[in-house]
Amino acid sequence: MIQTTPGWLTQDELDAARARMPILYVEAVPVRVDDSGEVTSVGLLLRIDAEGTISRTLVSGRVMHHERVRDALLRHLEKDLGPVALPRVPTSLQPFTVAEYFPTAGVTAYHDPRQHAVSLAYVVPVAGDCRPRQDALDLVWFSPQEAVSPAVQSEMPGGHAVLLKQALAHVGHVY
Amino acid sequence: MIQTTPGWLTQDELDAARARMPILYVEAVPVRVDDSGEVTSVGLLLRIDAEGTISRTLVSGRVMHHERVRDALLRHLEKDLGPVALPRVPTSLQPFTVAEYFPTAGVTAYHDPRQHAVSLAYVVPVAGDCRPRQDALDLVWFSPQEAVSPAVQSEMPGGHAVLLKQALAHVGHVY
Amino acid sequence: MIQTTPGWLTQDELDAARARMPILYVEAVPVRVDDSGEVTSVGLLLRIDAEGTISRTLVSGRVMHHERVRDALLRHLEKDLGPVALPRVPTSLQPFTVAEYFPTAGVTAYHDPRQHAVSLAYVVPVAGDCRPRQDALDLVWFSPQEAVSPAVQSEMPGGHAVLLKQALAHVGHVY
Amino acid sequence: MIQTTPGWLTQDELDAARARMPILYVEAVPVRVDDSGEVTSVGLLLRIDAEGTISRTLVSGRVMHHERVRDALLRHLEKDLGPVALPRVPTSLQPFTVAEYFPTAGVTAYHDPRQHAVSLAYVVPVAGDCRPRQDALDLVWFSPQEAVSPAVQSEMPGGHAVLLKQALAHVGHVY
Repeated sequence: MIQTTPGWLTQDELDAARARMPILYVEAVPVRVDDSGEVTSVGLLLRIDAEGTISRTLVSGRVMHHERVRDALLRHLEKDLGPVALPRVPTSLQPFTVAEYFPTAGVTAYHDPRQHAVSLAYVVPVAGDCRPRQDALDLVWFSPQEAVSPAVQSEMPGGHAVLLKQALAHVGHVY
Repeated sequence: MIQTTPGWLTQDELDAARARMPILYVEAVPVRVDDSGEVTSVGLLLRIDAEGTISRTLVSGRVMHHERVRDALLRHLEKDLGPVALPRVPTSLQPFTVAEYFPTAGVTAYHDPRQHAVSLAYVVPVAGDCRPRQDALDLVWFSPQEAVSPAVQSEMPGGHAVLLKQALAHVGHVY
Repeated sequence: MIQTTPGWLTQDELDAARARMPILYVEAVPVRVDDSGEVTSVGLLLRIDAEGTISRTLVSGRVMHHERVRDALLRHLEKDLGPVALPRVPTSLQPFTVAEYFPTAGVTAYHDPRQHAVSLAYVVPVAGDCRPRQDALDLVWFSPQEAVSPAVQSEMPGGHAVLLKQALAHVGHVY
Repeated sequence: MIQTTPGWLTQDELDAARARMPILYVEAVPVRVDDSGEVTSVGLLLRIDAEGTISRTLVSGRVMHHERVRDALLRHLEKDLGPVALPRVPTSLQPFTVAEYFPTAGVTAYHDPRQHAVSLAYVVPVAGDCRPRQDALDLVWFSPQEAVSPAVQSEMPGGHAVLLKQALAHVGHVY
């Protein structure tokens, strides 16, 4: 499917750009919180890729031309969690970290064979009902401790397991 | 009124402690946000002090013995904004700044003649209805630009004007 | 001058990309600090653009394909401040803010008529001797208070004045 | 040994205060960095407590009355690492986290049987020669990966193991 909005990229153009410059992404770690802001659970999207491999991912996507970071964040949250998830996009653009996905494995802890992507990562509380759309089968909620267990971490390739641990460390959960 | 919860301080003990060690505070800048997390307005409490001087303040208060920072934040938000303000206490304890109020003016940008207070400062979106309690007369909402105007800033003594500007700079509003 | 390193962009390709997607930048606010880490002065580059207008800017530049953010930061610091500036690149990639330069003025506080640039901004202490290179005439050190004075701020177009105020607010200097 | 500086606490007063209010601490994770700011090793102090148990700790200590946080940080760095460690105290007081040590185990991930301590935690590059003083036997440098190994983590009681992992996650090192 080719995006035809003026100023956005065709698939060919995107492929060309991906080979030549870092692509800006946003990523969100969806969480449930209690009244005191403590994270009580983490939502991971269950996906099946073209090869049939099951993986768990975070909310993630490109920032478009002439789109604000916070609008991109909101757009991808709605795309991945549905229209009534009620995400609480952060007031500050200061991310908890910047994740650098390199096409070459081992340069950083993150890896994306398609491209060099640089991702601004945020923890985003969601208060509403999450109904995954697009290519995600399901959104599964884990306790912070379950989310960093070897079983779940092994299903988060490309450095998403690392990013999730960083997010949880940022909100005070280390195991 | 003396707090008699075991482990907390009588007024005399608090006075003694204030003369001898830094006292830990939390401060919250209450804000309204739109769906994309953009701050649209800032809430300032209107107070009259013992001398009859009108001032505008942020939500602020001590952290008690054996109280978590996030519980102190929630307690002071409820105390100052009422029970249905629906504050969104941050997921991370990382404050946007640490404000150091010294009894001697000029050491830092913050000043509190009563004590050396060190305050963890957070921006807190509130979604509900705010009904000031305690000694506050009213909660008034300002646009970010109004909130940093000389008129409003002059009513925020002791460095609160500085702290408000830091909060707004953190969420992208500088004038 | 065309960069011919494999994977980097020719001027034509860069122009095309600039019209189609956000371009990732890093920006550094060079500062002098005392032993306690307190910022004592801010370094601004003095430039003359094609029209002969004098302006003051921060250290700024693109992140290249397959280049880490911290390497881009170091490269631009060396490019703008010379080889013996001894910049202390931050240990964490968490920026103090993300500045979004839009080709359309007024969308955010930042504006770049050439492109949509998204910039990760850092405060970087420099301990050595700064010798501006490239198109900068000079590096001038200002006290934090001078740096945010109307005279200096008026020479920082495109939102750099705003970004500098945010950097100084982050390190505790608000005027 | 009783501190007799006016405004500071005698041991009795400190004991009384510790039972009644949270005590403000600063903590520093000493690191070595390369030119790009990447953390290459972490310094841990080797201590023997009153019972003869060997433990590894971070640089840590109280903030005194009328002492700025950054001065407390510098004082404890010099006390623990010696006078020529050349620590680079951060420009911003924004800590990477706030660690809450409770006298009751299990309230948070941090525990201090003596007191309720609230600690502002920073990663601090040190460029010079470290010569532990006071009660520390030695300062040992570990690679980030070694520092979070079970062997080393088991020697860091009271939640220091957790705090170290949070520090390393903040600078991009997760294992």
